[in-house]
Amino acid sequence: MTQIGPFDLEKKAAVVAVILEKPLETSKKAAEKGADILEVRLDLLGIRNPESAAKIIREIKSETGLPVLVTNRSVAEGGKWEGKEVDRTELLVALLSLKDGPDAVDIELSASREDRDKVIKAAKAHGKTVIISSHDFSKTPSPQEMTATLAEMFLAEADIAKIAVMPGSMEDVLNLLKVTLEFKNTGKTVCTIAMGKPGKHTRVVAPLYGSVLTYASIESNAVAAPGQLPVDEVKKIMEMLK
Amino acid sequence: MTQIGPFDLEKKAAVVAVILEKPLETSKKAAEKGADILEVRLDLLGIRNPESAAKIIREIKSETGLPVLVTNRSVAEGGKWEGKEVDRTELLVALLSLKDGPDAVDIELSASREDRDKVIKAAKAHGKTVIISSHDFSKTPSPQEMTATLAEMFLAEADIAKIAVMPGSMEDVLNLLKVTLEFKNTGKTVCTIAMGKPGKHTRVVAPLYGSVLTYASIESNAVAAPGQLPVDEVKKIMEMLK
Repeated sequence: MTQIGPFDLEKKAAVVAVILEKPLETSKKAAEKGADILEVRLDLLGIRNPESAAKIIREIKSETGLPVLVTNRSVAEGGKWEGKEVDRTELLVALLSLKDGPDAVDIELSASREDRDKVIKAAKAHGKTVIISSHDFSKTPSPQEMTATLAEMFLAEADIAKIAVMPGSMEDVLNLLKVTLEFKNTGKTVCTIAMGKPGKHTRVVAPLYGSVLTYASIESNAVAAPGQLPVDEVKKIMEMLK
Repeated sequence: MTQIGPFDLEKKAAVVAVILEKPLETSKKAAEKGADILEVRLDLLGIRNPESAAKIIREIKSETGLPVLVTNRSVAEGGKWEGKEVDRTELLVALLSLKDGPDAVDIELSASREDRDKVIKAAKAHGKTVIISSHDFSKTPSPQEMTATLAEMFLAEADIAKIAVMPGSMEDVLNLLKVTLEFKNTGKTVCTIAMGKPGKHTRVVAPLYGSVLTYASIESNAVAAPGQLPVDEVKKIMEMLK
């Protein structure tokens, strides 16, 4: 059973609203639009110290009642963290021990083994859900490579293994969906995204093939990754197509 | 270039509203909801003579300005035609020669070779578009079988080769989309549908992989095949996901 806070991802996929500006205001709006989980993007919000991060996460949780996923994305993976790498992951570690802290954490497979393991260990010690992620903004790796990447994430103790790739063709999108389905069929919890225009439909369709999280925007002019759709539209379309 | 009336299917996929009751009233409603093409289902409307059929098609075209596809589905393929098989196809032949007649005709691959060829010959003689169709309400054939079926339709001179299948798994749906894409990539015009609940999303997603027609209902409680969505919702979702 994989959960983020009380949200049971085996019952249905979660719509994750990406909070990347005016955190409290945007979080409330996301909750009104029907988001299931809020992803607090520390790197995009420009929050660099544990006290500020803890405060805003506590406020968001208390105001919305929604589970929070914390992410502090590196530049190499499409994020905007500007400090030292060790500070990036230590910020996450500090938050994971808090009582009113995040319910889940996203850590990149590309982080150093040592830093990554510290984050994962802290999360597991406090019963938080671990997402290990990998992003490719230039291409879609072969099915074999995508399978190997997801398998490596589970070996590193991911609760949820996440890949976001850029399709160069519709074949790439079908390959991603096929890999998704194969993991689902073996009982593994993955999140898969085909970014950009050709992959736009995977935002609502990948959950049908086993992707447990779909990331959505609150304002259509403020998207965290190419191809993201607004929370309320994603919810509505998923409801119609299920 | 494959067209139905003036509608160019190479520019974008058409949303086909299935007219199965109160033909004139429903056709007007379908046009208001944004349908691109109207499929007049003679078998479901219970229209059995050429004069009545010609009259209603003429009225629909004049009232809505939309192209009309005429279908007179056999029981074996999920339809409700109750008369003799020869009358079923002769009704189509009679309509195809009319000036204000249908712009396209759907004829089953399973019709007898002789009857089928008469319909196709009449359509070609009058510049009408030929859809050759096959429906499997119990399963999804293997990719090889689906490919062979579509290829056989093109050999029989289909302008559009159409298969509707019932998926038993999400793998079946991916196989259908893969076959769709392969035909699209060789410049062939196909229409593919995965019916039922697991295939519901193909109503809006198959066009992204090369299916040129998506069939939709006008009233959500009157659907011609399992999994069909309402015209206006299909239009809206396709617009969002493109």
